[in-house]
Amino acid sequence: MPNTRFDVLCIGNAIVDIIAESTDAYIKSHGLDKGHMRLVDPEEQARIYAGVGPAIETSGGSAGNTVVGVASFGGRGAYFGKVADDTFGKIFRHDIGAMGITFESKSVAPGGPPTASSVILVTPDGERTMNTHLGACVMLDEADVDPIIVAASRITYMEGYLYDRPAAKRAFHLAAKLAHEAGRKVSLSLSDGFCVDRHRAQFLSLIKGSIDIVFANQVEICSLYQTTDFEDACRQMAKDAPLAAVTRGAQGSVIIRGTERIEVPVEPVARVIDATGAGDLYAAGFLFGHARGAPLATCGKLASLAAAEVISHIGPRPAIRLEALAKGLF
Amino acid sequence: MPNTRFDVLCIGNAIVDIIAESTDAYIKSHGLDKGHMRLVDPEEQARIYAGVGPAIETSGGSAGNTVVGVASFGGRGAYFGKVADDTFGKIFRHDIGAMGITFESKSVAPGGPPTASSVILVTPDGERTMNTHLGACVMLDEADVDPIIVAASRITYMEGYLYDRPAAKRAFHLAAKLAHEAGRKVSLSLSDGFCVDRHRAQFLSLIKGSIDIVFANQVEICSLYQTTDFEDACRQMAKDAPLAAVTRGAQGSVIIRGTERIEVPVEPVARVIDATGAGDLYAAGFLFGHARGAPLATCGKLASLAAAEVISHIGPRPAIRLEALAKGLF
Repeated sequence: MPNTRFDVLCIGNAIVDIIAESTDAYIKSHGLDKGHMRLVDPEEQARIYAGVGPAIETSGGSAGNTVVGVASFGGRGAYFGKVADDTFGKIFRHDIGAMGITFESKSVAPGGPPTASSVILVTPDGERTMNTHLGACVMLDEADVDPIIVAASRITYMEGYLYDRPAAKRAFHLAAKLAHEAGRKVSLSLSDGFCVDRHRAQFLSLIKGSIDIVFANQVEICSLYQTTDFEDACRQMAKDAPLAAVTRGAQGSVIIRGTERIEVPVEPVARVIDATGAGDLYAAGFLFGHARGAPLATCGKLASLAAAEVISHIGPRPAIRLEALAKGLF
Repeated sequence: MPNTRFDVLCIGNAIVDIIAESTDAYIKSHGLDKGHMRLVDPEEQARIYAGVGPAIETSGGSAGNTVVGVASFGGRGAYFGKVADDTFGKIFRHDIGAMGITFESKSVAPGGPPTASSVILVTPDGERTMNTHLGACVMLDEADVDPIIVAASRITYMEGYLYDRPAAKRAFHLAAKLAHEAGRKVSLSLSDGFCVDRHRAQFLSLIKGSIDIVFANQVEICSLYQTTDFEDACRQMAKDAPLAAVTRGAQGSVIIRGTERIEVPVEPVARVIDATGAGDLYAAGFLFGHARGAPLATCGKLASLAAAEVISHIGPRPAIRLEALAKGLF
C-alpha cells in the first residue's frame, strides 16, 4: 500500500454559501421544497436572493464542509473541487487552505463560469433550503482526479451531488476505482432526497458494487429503496453496503454493518440555529474516527458531536476546533 | 422644514468584512496595532489574509453598520457610500437594501477600483484589528451627496474615517452644510484613535463649528484632547460639542450635554465574541432614540442594548431585530 498521507480525501462541488434568514411563507411563495437543494440558473438565484434579508457569506459545499470537519478534528485532509479565480473562488481556496487541507485542483480558465454559490434560506426552525448555481463546478472532470492523492488517502469520500453532471460522475468512478486499486476505502453521501430520485438506479448499483461506507439521512434512504418504512430501508441497506451510517435528525442515527446495528443518540443542543452542514459534519466525525481506527460507536459519537456543533450557529463549518470536543474519546 | 423621510442618513466607507479568528502572536508578528483600523494596499491585505484561519464574509463599514442598526430598530435610514459593481459590491448593496434602507449612490464605473474590503482579525478576547483596502470608497465625493435626502433626514451621521480622503472630506462638509441649512442635526463619529491623530486639528475645528452630536470612545476622546485624563477630556468635550456620547468598553458610557452628564451602564453579555461594530451599533441605538425624541438616558439604553447584541456574535451587524430589544423602552 502506498504511503498514507491523508485520512480522508473529499471530492465535491466547491461552493460559497450565501446564508440568509427567511420564512416559511417566502419558501412557499417561491415554490421551493423546504429542506432540499435545487439547482438554479443565475437569474433564478438572483430572484430568490433579492427577496431575502441580509446574508452572510461563507465557504460551503457538502464535501468541502466534511473535509474541513476532518481537519478540525486534527485529521489530514485533501480535497478535489473546481473554483474560478474570482472573489468567491479565492475565499473558498483560502478557507480550505487555512485548515491545512491539500487542495491542488486547478481553477477554471479566465472567461469561464464563476465559482459556484448557493443562496441558502434558513427558516426560524433552523431548517435550510438551498438554491445552488453550480458555475465552475461543472468543469470538474477526470483530469482533476490526482491518482497519487487518491492512493495516499485512507478513505475517498464523494458527495452524491456530483452525479448531477456526467463529467463529475466519470471523475467519481475513476476516483473510486483508483482508491480500490490502492487498497483504500470509498465512501458516498446520498446528499439529498431529490438527488436520490434523480439517480436511484445508478446509486443502487454503485452501492452494491463499489462503496464501502454509505452516508444517508432518513429521507434519502427511504427514497433510495422507495419505501416509507425506515426499518425496511435499513434492512435493505445492510444487505447492499458493508457499512452505513443513517441520520434521523433529532432521533439520532443508526450505524449498520451486516447484522450489527448501533443506535447513536444526538448530542444535545440548546437550539438549532442553522442546520446547514449537519450531515456533512456528521460524516466528518465518522470518517475521522474510522480512518483512525476508532470503534464504530466512537465514530458515531464523534459524528454526533460535530453535527451538534455546526447546527448551533449560522454557517456550515465548525466555529470551534472539533479536536477539543473529541478529547479523551479514543 | 422639508418633509422628514428619514430618521438617520449615514455616510461612510462601504466595506465588506472578511472576519477571521486570529491570535495575539499573529497580530504582533505582523506589527499590527491591536484594536485599531489601518489602511493597507491589496498586496499587504493579501499577505495578512494568507496567514489567518477560515473567515466569514459580511457587509460592514462603520456607518453602514450604524444605518443597519437604525433600520433594525424600526427606524428609517438612508446611506451614501461607494461600491463597485462586483461580487462584494452586490453583497453590500443587497444587505443594505434588504433592511429597507435607501441607498442610491451610483457604483463606480467598470474598470475602476474594487469594492472595499477589510480583513478583520478577531483575537480570543473578542477584540478586532482591521486591515482595510478602501478601493471604490475613494471615489465618494460631493456628487454623491444628494441634497434632497440630506434635507429629508433628521440626523446626518458621518464616520471620521471619511477624513482620510480629501474628496470624501469635501462631501462630508457639503452634507453638514446642507443638513444645517435644512434645520437638521449633524453627527460625527471619531472612528479610531489613529484616525483622530491624523486629523486632530480639523476634527476639533469641525466639532466646535458644525457637529451637534459627537460619538467617541475613551481612546479617541483622549487622543483628541491629547490627555490621558478621561475626565479632563470629557470636560473639554462638554465645552466644544452640544451633545456627546463617549463609550468606555466594559465600563459603560457617558452622555454629556453641557453641565448635564448621564452615566450609562453596559448591558450584560455572557462573553464578548467579536467586538466588531460595537461602537457603530452604540451610535445606531443612540441616534434612533434621539431622532425619535427619546430622553437621553433612553438613547443611552438603546445604544447599550444594540452594542451588547452585536458583540455577542461574529459580525458587525445585528443577528436579531433590535426592535424586539427596544420594546416598551419609550
